[in-house]
Order: sequence, then C-alpha cells, then structure tokens
Amino acid sequence: MENSRNQKPIEELYHIAESIYGQLESGDIPGMSIPLRTKSNINFMPRKGVWKYGKAKGSRTAKKLRGAYMLLRTMYMLDFIREMIEQSKSSTLREMYYISEGWGLAKFGSQNESNLLAEDMEIITGCMREDFKLRPEEDGARVMGNVTIEETNRKGEKKKINCRDDVGDSGYGIPYNVEKDKIRFIDSDVDFAIAIETGGMFDRLVENGFDEDSRCFLVHLKGQPARSTRRFMKRLNEEMGVPLIVFTDCDPWSFRIFASVAYGAIKTAHISEYLATPTAVYLGITATDILNYDLPTDKLSGQDVKALESELTDPRFKDRFWKDEIELMLKIKKKAEQQALAKYGLDFATDTYLPEKLSQLGLLK
Amino acid sequence: MENSRNQKPIEELYHIAESIYGQLESGDIPGMSIPLRTKSNINFMPRKGVWKYGKAKGSRTAKKLRGAYMLLRTMYMLDFIREMIEQSKSSTLREMYYISEGWGLAKFGSQNESNLLAEDMEIITGCMREDFKLRPEEDGARVMGNVTIEETNRKGEKKKINCRDDVGDSGYGIPYNVEKDKIRFIDSDVDFAIAIETGGMFDRLVENGFDEDSRCFLVHLKGQPARSTRRFMKRLNEEMGVPLIVFTDCDPWSFRIFASVAYGAIKTAHISEYLATPTAVYLGITATDILNYDLPTDKLSGQDVKALESELTDPRFKDRFWKDEIELMLKIKKKAEQQALAKYGLDFATDTYLPEKLSQLGLLK
Repeated sequence: MENSRNQKPIEELYHIAESIYGQLESGDIPGMSIPLRTKSNINFMPRKGVWKYGKAKGSRTAKKLRGAYMLLRTMYMLDFIREMIEQSKSSTLREMYYISEGWGLAKFGSQNESNLLAEDMEIITGCMREDFKLRPEEDGARVMGNVTIEETNRKGEKKKINCRDDVGDSGYGIPYNVEKDKIRFIDSDVDFAIAIETGGMFDRLVENGFDEDSRCFLVHLKGQPARSTRRFMKRLNEEMGVPLIVFTDCDPWSFRIFASVAYGAIKTAHISEYLATPTAVYLGITATDILNYDLPTDKLSGQDVKALESELTDPRFKDRFWKDEIELMLKIKKKAEQQALAKYGLDFATDTYLPEKLSQLGLLK
Repeated sequence: MENSRNQKPIEELYHIAESIYGQLESGDIPGMSIPLRTKSNINFMPRKGVWKYGKAKGSRTAKKLRGAYMLLRTMYMLDFIREMIEQSKSSTLREMYYISEGWGLAKFGSQNESNLLAEDMEIITGCMREDFKLRPEEDGARVMGNVTIEETNRKGEKKKINCRDDVGDSGYGIPYNVEKDKIRFIDSDVDFAIAIETGGMFDRLVENGFDEDSRCFLVHLKGQPARSTRRFMKRLNEEMGVPLIVFTDCDPWSFRIFASVAYGAIKTAHISEYLATPTAVYLGITATDILNYDLPTDKLSGQDVKALESELTDPRFKDRFWKDEIELMLKIKKKAEQQALAKYGLDFATDTYLPEKLSQLGLLK
C-alpha cells in the first residue's frame, strides 16, 4: 500500500543520483538537463484543457562553480527526501531551507532557491512535491458537505470522516497531502460542489444550510487555492463524478483563481494534469450579475483594467462567455464582491441568487 | 439555555434604543455617550494584568447632521442585530456593511465605519461582538490534543468532539463563536497548552506526536490570533486549569503576539478580560536561544529596532525577563524564526529544544 506509492519517487530520485554518479565514473563533467521554465516554453493544451511545458531543455553542469554547487545541493536534497520518505516524515519548504544550514558550502542562499530546486525535482521526475514529503506553510482549506472520506492519520490509523456529520461548523480541514495513501473518497451523496473564494461567503452557505438544501459540497478556496485544495477538488470531480462550480468576486484577480482551478497556473504547469479540473464551470459574480441584480460595486483601478485586458489575450479566457463578460466589465468600469449580495439581506445569496444561477447551469431544477 | 445567553445583548440593545426614544419624547436633542477611545484613555491594570478603558467619555448627538446620521445608523444596526439573534443567524462585518445599502441615507461610507460602530456597541453594552452575531472574515485557528469539547452545531445539535481522536491531521477548527452556548469544555487530559505562531511549526509538532508524548494541547495562532482563538485559550486556561505557553519567532512583532495573548491589545481594550490569559508564559524563541543554540538568524531592520525600543517602554514588557531579552536582541542585532530550529534536523524542536525549555519552566520533568 503505502510502500508502492512511495516506491516511484524513491526510484526517480535514485535515477538522478545514478546518472550523476555514472557521469563522474566515466570521467565526464556531471550535469543534468531540465525543461526550460520560460514563458515561451509553456503551452496551453486545448485538448486536455491545461498548461504544459514544451520540449525546450536547458542543462545544468558542474563546469562552473555555481553549477557544481547546484548539483551538490541537488544530491543533498535527494538524500534528505529519501530519509523523510523512509521515516514517514515531512517537511515544510521553510524547514528544508534551514536544514541546508547543515550542508556546508552547498547551503541555499535563500528560500526561493530551495523552492525552485524542489520544483525542478518535480519536473525531472514527474512526481509531485507531496510525493517528496515537502509542503508549504499554507493552511489547508475547509470543506463541508455530505461526502465521506477515509484519512490515514499520522499514526497510520484509517479514520472515516463524513465532512458534514462528523465535523464542527468550521468543517473538515484538508490536509497538505491528499494523495491516495492519505485520503480515499468513500462515499458522496451530493449533486455538485461549489468552490467559494471568501470565508465570509463559505460561512454564509454553511450557516444557511445550503449544502443540505441543495445537495452540494462546499469548498473554501481561501483566495488563490493551495495545491492540496485543487487536488482535492479534482479527485472529487474525477473519482466521484461531482461537477465543480466556482463562485468568486467579480474581479480580474478572482477570474484568475477560476482559471487556476480549471486550467492550472503557469507556475505549476508541470503538474496541471494533477491539479486542474478542466470541466469546472464559472458561476459568478459576473458583470452581467452586477447589472441584473444592481449590486453595490467599486470602480475598476488602473491595475484592474490592465489585468482584464491581459485576460482578453489569455488562451484560458478565449471563449464567448469570458470575452463578453470581460468586455462588459471594461465598459461599466466596475467590480463587485460576493458579499455585496448581502445588500438584499443575509438569505439572498442562498434563496435567490444561487438558485437562479444554478438553474441556468441546469444544476437545480 | 441559548435564550438566557441571548437575553442580555437584546436587553442591552433595547436600553440604547429606549434612551434615544426617551430623549426624543421629552423633546431633547438625542445623543449617547461612549468612553473615549484615545490612547490616553487606555490604562494597563497591573492587578488584572490587562488593558482597560479609563473614565473619560465623549458624546455623540444629533445636533449636527453627521451625528444624526450616526444615531440613525446605530438604530438600524440595533434592529439588524435583534433580527439576527431572533433568527439564530450571524453576519460577517463585511456583510453588515453591505446590508446598510438598504438603509438609505444612513448607509455606511466604508467598512471601517461599520466596524467601529460595532466596537462602540461592545463598549456601551459590555457585550461582545460575538453576542451580537457579528464576526470577522478570518478563519478560526486549528488545535490538536486530548481535549474533548461539545459543539452546538448550526442545526442546534450537540456534538462531542475529541480534538485529537475525532479529527483528521489538520486538527479541530475553532469556530468564530466559542462562547458557552456554542462550545463547552467536557474533558481535558493534558498538562499544558502551547500556542504556536506558524503553521509550519504547528504541523511539525503534530507530525512528531508532541501532543501525545508531552501530554499537551497544540494551538495554531496563525500570526496575530483571532478573537475566537484568544477566547478559546482563555477558557481552556480558566475552566480546565490548563497552563498556557506561547512559542513564537524571536522578532518584535511576535513579542506583540505574545502580549496580545497574555494582556490584550489596545484595539480590544474594552474586552481584555474576556480575551487575555494573564498567566500565559513566553517560551521562546528568545535572544538567549539564538546564542545558546547558535540558530540561523536575520539582521534586525530599522523598523525592528524601533519596535523593540518602543517595547522597552511598553508596560506589558517591563519585567526583568523581557528587558534583558530585548536589550540582548538590540545588542546582537539579530532575529530568528521558529523553523530555524530545523538547522539541527526535523526532530530537534520536539526532541531537544522544547523539552529543555519546558523543563526550565517546570512543565516537563
């Protein structure tokens, strides 16, 4: 079980070490090649609906001192990861940076360096950072709804948790690792899931019992969602067949949150297939909603306008729906928050707005 | 049960409304008086160990248009709160700001205005924002350890949850309201609680099973802790007799986190008695730790130095321990993070640092 899952990353790490060792043995200057992480080497794959790296590669060799240190650091990191996997430990990216204090001259100059090297390892091996037991500082998001999962806890015990009946009102907290060795989906009795940008709106839907009344699963995105949140939603969508709806502010930055949920982000292009849910549908708030519901708004800032204009040329926003909504927003020069729906009272979001919008999407009859 | 708890805030709100009504009836220009919220009217009470407002009062009357709108707004807000209490609803501060869109000319100019008015209501009535069903956007913090609570959930059902055995590895999420009608402490089998600044260190202690091995309760502060987190720790300390230890970065801003946990913050001086745990003890990281454990450090910035100097004149930091540590920090010109302990490996914090420091405090033998 856990072993088979952990076998692949260990093997991949050994491959890297063996390749360097082999080059040294045969008297070559050691080096490794990795896909170029430039914008021009990242392509949108319309068929899969996600971002991926292209074929261009760069190499990193020990010809110069800088490159040699980089290879040494890589070897230390491989060793550290191997040790963690063997001991069932994990480390924050910040801890790994401090761990390198013990690596003498190979120690990282900044956490940015160690984070980038962790991403390089992902790209080279095709594994995920979570497989290497590395995790960010971010908290997992909260979820609420009639879905039962089985979590293998820190002691290796398996616990069934219903994300509505077995938790308090703050919901179930998604752990940093949601791969199959940690989380299994057991049962789901919901018609769809809604990913919600703000904690205020998430708590509103929880308080109003929207998950029960509308048979849905609520996910708090907490702004730009953590990897574990995106992976959790993708697995729920794929393994349990639960359609995913995204509900955010009407704001260019919120549209990017939707895009990263549905298509992936440039920064994590190498693992888009693991994280993105290409069938995710954007529900609102839209510019049309601002007009139809006469919502309280703020003026677009100069930066907002620039962001919207750049989205008009982004392949992730090129369908008719997004073109129309973004152009309408630029025309009315306004943005609005989810919580602006409270203008009509605390129940307006759950009693009027969401049912109307979900009916349009065919998710409520 | 719930009714008795909700009776007091409703009565207090009626008092305000009645007083305004009485003044109008007798032909006076209506007004209300509230404690001045200036720095000079906030005093440190050494006996109770918390901040409190002094006796100076200001008045707010309808003599000018601005004041009249303010009173009108107050009446609308009282009515909104009454309605929420009667319907067992709650609202984010942001939602209340948007709700005021329906109040015509009395609508708030900004959320800052509505937040301040909510604080005024607390000061006048001696109730807490939570009693008025108003809450911030912040997420509740996570906790982990052998403490059993009973949460009354949104449906009014009472659920017993053990914060170690009945939750996943991300712990139990503290809800926004932790008053007695929502949370009751049932049982506690721990020797002390540790409040931890960063998520990385909280997860480290969870992963290493420190709560079990050292019979303690772990609380993630998430930086400057939310009111619900501070209230939860205070109640655990007072009702269950669990000593509270605070573990943060060695950094002037982290010292302020400790001070707000132990003594309260100026912004919430009117409710310090509800939120502060005056017996809380600071564990580290200290400047002495930086030297004793030879920790990786960063240089103090100019702002850090200014903050430390101002702490030297802050009544909350005037004992020998803080004077010595702050002066030492200014001398070595360095600060350090909790996670810098990872320099010596992922187990150093739980196997060496914490046991040594806790023994010094007499909490581990």
